[in-house]
Amino acid sequence: MSKIVNIGIIGAGRIGQIHAENLCTRIKEARVVAVADKEETRAQVVAGKYGKVKWYKDFEKMLKQEDIEAVVICTDTSVHKKAIIESAKKGKHIFCEKPIALTLEETDEALSVVEGEGVLLQVGFMRRFDPALFSAKKEVDKGCIGKPILFKAISRDPQGPPLEYVRVSGGLFVDSSIHDIDLARWFMGSEVEKVYAEGKTLIYPEYKEYGDVDVAVTTLSFKNGGIGSIENLRKSGYGYDTRVEIVGSKGALSIGFLRHRGFFTLKKLKVNYDVVPSWQERFKEAFVREMQHFVDCIINHTSPLVTGIDAKKSLQIALAATKSCKEGVPIPLG
Amino acid sequence: MSKIVNIGIIGAGRIGQIHAENLCTRIKEARVVAVADKEETRAQVVAGKYGKVKWYKDFEKMLKQEDIEAVVICTDTSVHKKAIIESAKKGKHIFCEKPIALTLEETDEALSVVEGEGVLLQVGFMRRFDPALFSAKKEVDKGCIGKPILFKAISRDPQGPPLEYVRVSGGLFVDSSIHDIDLARWFMGSEVEKVYAEGKTLIYPEYKEYGDVDVAVTTLSFKNGGIGSIENLRKSGYGYDTRVEIVGSKGALSIGFLRHRGFFTLKKLKVNYDVVPSWQERFKEAFVREMQHFVDCIINHTSPLVTGIDAKKSLQIALAATKSCKEGVPIPLG
Amino acid sequence: MSKIVNIGIIGAGRIGQIHAENLCTRIKEARVVAVADKEETRAQVVAGKYGKVKWYKDFEKMLKQEDIEAVVICTDTSVHKKAIIESAKKGKHIFCEKPIALTLEETDEALSVVEGEGVLLQVGFMRRFDPALFSAKKEVDKGCIGKPILFKAISRDPQGPPLEYVRVSGGLFVDSSIHDIDLARWFMGSEVEKVYAEGKTLIYPEYKEYGDVDVAVTTLSFKNGGIGSIENLRKSGYGYDTRVEIVGSKGALSIGFLRHRGFFTLKKLKVNYDVVPSWQERFKEAFVREMQHFVDCIINHTSPLVTGIDAKKSLQIALAATKSCKEGVPIPLG
Amino acid sequence: MSKIVNIGIIGAGRIGQIHAENLCTRIKEARVVAVADKEETRAQVVAGKYGKVKWYKDFEKMLKQEDIEAVVICTDTSVHKKAIIESAKKGKHIFCEKPIALTLEETDEALSVVEGEGVLLQVGFMRRFDPALFSAKKEVDKGCIGKPILFKAISRDPQGPPLEYVRVSGGLFVDSSIHDIDLARWFMGSEVEKVYAEGKTLIYPEYKEYGDVDVAVTTLSFKNGGIGSIENLRKSGYGYDTRVEIVGSKGALSIGFLRHRGFFTLKKLKVNYDVVPSWQERFKEAFVREMQHFVDCIINHTSPLVTGIDAKKSLQIALAATKSCKEGVPIPLG
Repeated sequence: MSKIVNIGIIGAGRIGQIHAENLCTRIKEARVVAVADKEETRAQVVAGKYGKVKWYKDFEKMLKQEDIEAVVICTDTSVHKKAIIESAKKGKHIFCEKPIALTLEETDEALSVVEGEGVLLQVGFMRRFDPALFSAKKEVDKGCIGKPILFKAISRDPQGPPLEYVRVSGGLFVDSSIHDIDLARWFMGSEVEKVYAEGKTLIYPEYKEYGDVDVAVTTLSFKNGGIGSIENLRKSGYGYDTRVEIVGSKGALSIGFLRHRGFFTLKKLKVNYDVVPSWQERFKEAFVREMQHFVDCIINHTSPLVTGIDAKKSLQIALAATKSCKEGVPIPLG
Repeated sequence: MSKIVNIGIIGAGRIGQIHAENLCTRIKEARVVAVADKEETRAQVVAGKYGKVKWYKDFEKMLKQEDIEAVVICTDTSVHKKAIIESAKKGKHIFCEKPIALTLEETDEALSVVEGEGVLLQVGFMRRFDPALFSAKKEVDKGCIGKPILFKAISRDPQGPPLEYVRVSGGLFVDSSIHDIDLARWFMGSEVEKVYAEGKTLIYPEYKEYGDVDVAVTTLSFKNGGIGSIENLRKSGYGYDTRVEIVGSKGALSIGFLRHRGFFTLKKLKVNYDVVPSWQERFKEAFVREMQHFVDCIINHTSPLVTGIDAKKSLQIALAATKSCKEGVPIPLG
Repeated sequence: MSKIVNIGIIGAGRIGQIHAENLCTRIKEARVVAVADKEETRAQVVAGKYGKVKWYKDFEKMLKQEDIEAVVICTDTSVHKKAIIESAKKGKHIFCEKPIALTLEETDEALSVVEGEGVLLQVGFMRRFDPALFSAKKEVDKGCIGKPILFKAISRDPQGPPLEYVRVSGGLFVDSSIHDIDLARWFMGSEVEKVYAEGKTLIYPEYKEYGDVDVAVTTLSFKNGGIGSIENLRKSGYGYDTRVEIVGSKGALSIGFLRHRGFFTLKKLKVNYDVVPSWQERFKEAFVREMQHFVDCIINHTSPLVTGIDAKKSLQIALAATKSCKEGVPIPLG
Repeated sequence: MSKIVNIGIIGAGRIGQIHAENLCTRIKEARVVAVADKEETRAQVVAGKYGKVKWYKDFEKMLKQEDIEAVVICTDTSVHKKAIIESAKKGKHIFCEKPIALTLEETDEALSVVEGEGVLLQVGFMRRFDPALFSAKKEVDKGCIGKPILFKAISRDPQGPPLEYVRVSGGLFVDSSIHDIDLARWFMGSEVEKVYAEGKTLIYPEYKEYGDVDVAVTTLSFKNGGIGSIENLRKSGYGYDTRVEIVGSKGALSIGFLRHRGFFTLKKLKVNYDVVPSWQERFKEAFVREMQHFVDCIINHTSPLVTGIDAKKSLQIALAATKSCKEGVPIPLG
């Protein structure tokens, strides 16, 4: 354990705090040395929690701190591109939350600077690091279900985000389905050539103002012939529920037990299993493991499991789904 | 138990034999008095199994047998229309396997004779009589999950039918998806206004000769705003698997446990649950209950749960799905 | 289906009504022709439900009705012995609810008359006819878990019986554990040589008046070396729960899913499965099948799966458990 | 994170290595500074894995290393007493694997020195730190199932230990049941007043040489009226299986899903869930959390969740079970 990676956090909101906590308490090879947030007090509070950590209002100032080797970008999506480009120019390795940007053009812009500077970029599709999904992928790759034919995913939130978030989120497909799209590409080992999405605004009529939907079913056609079917729902009425099933030529593999804590109760004519309350709970371990992976990649000079290209490909599909949903027709992809 | 309904079976193949067996051994108010099948020996064998039962090669001859009050039609689909019309003209009550016909025109023709003769017609969507689906429907109607928003169904066969069946089946959507479509209409309590289907031929390349697919994902838009998503697969690699999930504004209800016999074994690092091997096993009780319902409707002069109109509506959707799959565009329904 | 067995019901209470209903509506080879109950109106009501059925206050009078070929005895346990002896003497085949009597002496007395008269006697250990337990037994016998080493059973009632029943029930071990004891002997294929029981009265203090307990754990030692462990509880707080697990040298087999209806709901952070509410529900199909078996045995002149000897052996063990619980020591069996 | 606890490991075998790994990679507030093992090379290898760690053949020499604040004792049970006493005399806080000793006398001897020296002693009943058992205990304490009446536990090993281990293990009850006994006391919140154990040697006949059994069912009577029933089996034939169920006056709570990885496969008429292969896997997280708890207790000067008194009480019960099994009678406890 000779090598320690010094890290600066850019954006100390909900997800920034999760990463800070994991880096400080679970990952021995990491040290958080700086936190930047446009809300000064938030930067200060988070920095104060973990000992000798500097804080900044302006992340560009933070990037001048020389002992920082890597950054973890957790700002609003609108700031991602700039934060990536500035960090890359300072030679910092980069972890960035998804999506890199809401357009393919901005994504390309960021990726080309990263490539030019030769820094490492990992994108926050944390689901790939979930122990269940991770080991399931290994089983599928070993051929345990034959050749994958069908990818099914469900992602149901306990409740929809507030209107102000919906406004800047890029919509259900770019904000939420994109996680399932990334898994679909990963599990099927093939690219998508056509997308059809059916979406409605049935739960939060106020989302219509921003042209967003709260329930959607997306059909993907893969170049290798496979089919994908993804369901996204903003409000499940019971908790956070995400499931994946891959059907192959020789069997199927299903991830997701609809059980949270390791016990159940028997009361008044009912067996009760806890349902996972939130994505934070469901992917608790995944968040730790993606940070561990990021730090390991830096130490060992290896490529991350989720790259900028993955981020771009998934965005492309999510944008096509958005268009399909609006126009009522399937959208071919290049 | 004063009243006994005398029944004639038309078509003594696989499904005809199931109905004959149930009527003879499980339904006290029914008596099978005649069996007709174009394969004489088959008619003879089935008739011989249950005591004093007459047998015929020609169902039209059988229809002259005066003590027959009702018929159960289990022939090839191509004979359904004729059998319905002839039976109706003789004043027999009719149970007919799905689909009534492969075109809406023929379906209408049969239905109008039935209506004119005033006989009872029940169609073989037996899934509605499955104890789990039946009681689930009651729960949903009681409002236990709020207003239904999303209907999901999976139907995976253990293996695909032989080519000669595929040739006359009407295709995956009309032959198989139609069951899920019927459930979708029933559970959502609304009609479908648009269909999009993505289908491929990935398992049985020989099906391509008849333009049929072996895996498909169908998206339904309901008039009340809800969305449906149905998966059909001709070969699961593990058994027969049919599941339904209804998501409402206040929760969800899921039918299908992936467990067959009431026990599991623990061996060599595995918990093993049996999977249902076939639709015959999965819907064993449903087949009994639909026959009981048919007989009860005759005795009590009540309308069956599944009518000719249901058959027609589901066919319409299945045909639209077939068209969507071929043309690559969503199909609106009138 | 030429042969019909004419049956007389002796005792038209809760369990007598279940058998009458099954015989009349589910078993084509059976005809209920007479019902006797010391409460005249009860006999009359049950008889009236099923068409041409005679009713009696006095079962001895009923036994003179010549067309009765078999009887189903569902009276209080105190009447069993007399009803068996009188029926046997009239040459009627006998189905009798468990236990035959509360003492071994009376049991022997009844069994010797049955043997002398050469009539068939089946005893009401219906659990053996439960589809799950029945097919599990077949698997175990096929050697799927190797040689059975350990038998575990749980039987929890939703609530305890009323005091007046407790008074005449013979106590928890003779009334309730006896079912698990029968399964233990059946699954292990060996006789019990020692019993230790620990019982307490923790839920219904009023049971103490009759020296009865409401929770007990019984340990059985089998002659073949195996061990059994049985739990009985008078009030589960959640429903009726009965489970069996057999552990063998190569694995284990577990019966009982804690699920009642074939669906589950997802609401307010909980997955909810129904729990079986009562033994009537849990063993609904078993009751049908034990009657079918009884009728089949009569028609085919074969021995029933559960004989008078089974009833006697289980009673012996249940009495030893009762004694062990009272005296605080293990009781050896001859 | 100012405070770091320097720790010496005594005994670098299987369990010593687990603790070393967790302390070095998962617990930021801990630093392993020394490892002692009578097998020199083992001490050397383990020390070498984690950077600047000293190694010793003789733990007494290690205890002279002044920067060591706490020790983790993972030697053979026969060395526990001595290691505890010597460590306590040097003022080191102590974590010791269970059992402290194989006799109550030696246990008392060790505990009195610990008390005299005023050091902290935590004993390795790691199950209490398992997330499922830990949160279940909280639910039970909150009253979610009413007053606990019945405690059930199952512990089945994938295979029995080698003969040389059996010889020194203290037998099945002291080596294995003791974990379940500790949980029983914890969940029931009451002490045991009587024990009856039935044990056999059915799988490993060679164990008889040391008077040990390989399958046992133990019945506990609690002072508060409750009953406990514990099953221990040396070879399950399928994996590691540990389950706990607590039945209360208002319901029951069950821990243990018989599922290991977060997915299942569907192949050849079977649903397959992984079974946990070993206690190391089952209690992976529990081992981390017990070490975290030990380190936290040292830093915060608080009492550990599992004390020497807990170790002694459970040993007392395990010894009584051993005696009961040998003598065939229930054993009262003081």
